[in-house]
Amino acid sequence: MAVVAKWMCDRDNTMFDNKKDADAYDKMLELAEGFSALLLQHIPSVDEARAEEFGIFLAKNKEAVMQACKGRVEALEEINGDASPSNVSPLSAQA
Amino acid sequence: MAVVAKWMCDRDNTMFDNKKDADAYDKMLELAEGFSALLLQHIPSVDEARAEEFGIFLAKNKEAVMQACKGRVEALEEINGDASPSNVSPLSAQA
Repeated sequence: MAVVAKWMCDRDNTMFDNKKDADAYDKMLELAEGFSALLLQHIPSVDEARAEEFGIFLAKNKEAVMQACKGRVEALEEINGDASPSNVSPLSAQA
Repeated sequence: MAVVAKWMCDRDNTMFDNKKDADAYDKMLELAEGFSALLLQHIPSVDEARAEEFGIFLAKNKEAVMQACKGRVEALEEINGDASPSNVSPLSAQA
């Protein structure tokens, strides 16, 4: 038996084994909230959960967003292909 | 009478007096289209014109978007305050 340190992101209570991952997750959610808030302000008719999801999507792909802002707009299309929408799960390969 | 060079962005036929401004506008619209496309893919129920508008908003504020992605998320809130939605026009100061 042992006592193990855990880290919790208090935005959504997700648990992590180390502080670095918890910090990164917290920062990602913070950015996501910023994007979602912008979207909801501009298009108030958008479903809030959908807006939150889109914010998380942009935040998770912030590297591509930055590249696009710097001029390589194709970066946005590339994440398009990778990240499947949440209602479509890729088939997992069978060994 | 004189012949004057003009530059047109063929995405929406906006005219410019110099190539530099036309290029910058074209690049901004390209980025905007990238963002709008992402939004429409994630939230297909969003009104297309609204999605386009939101893409243009993000593209016009790409400096703040980049700052937020780099960690200064407040940058997004700051543009929130500045950029009034298209249906609200600031009163112009009378001299």
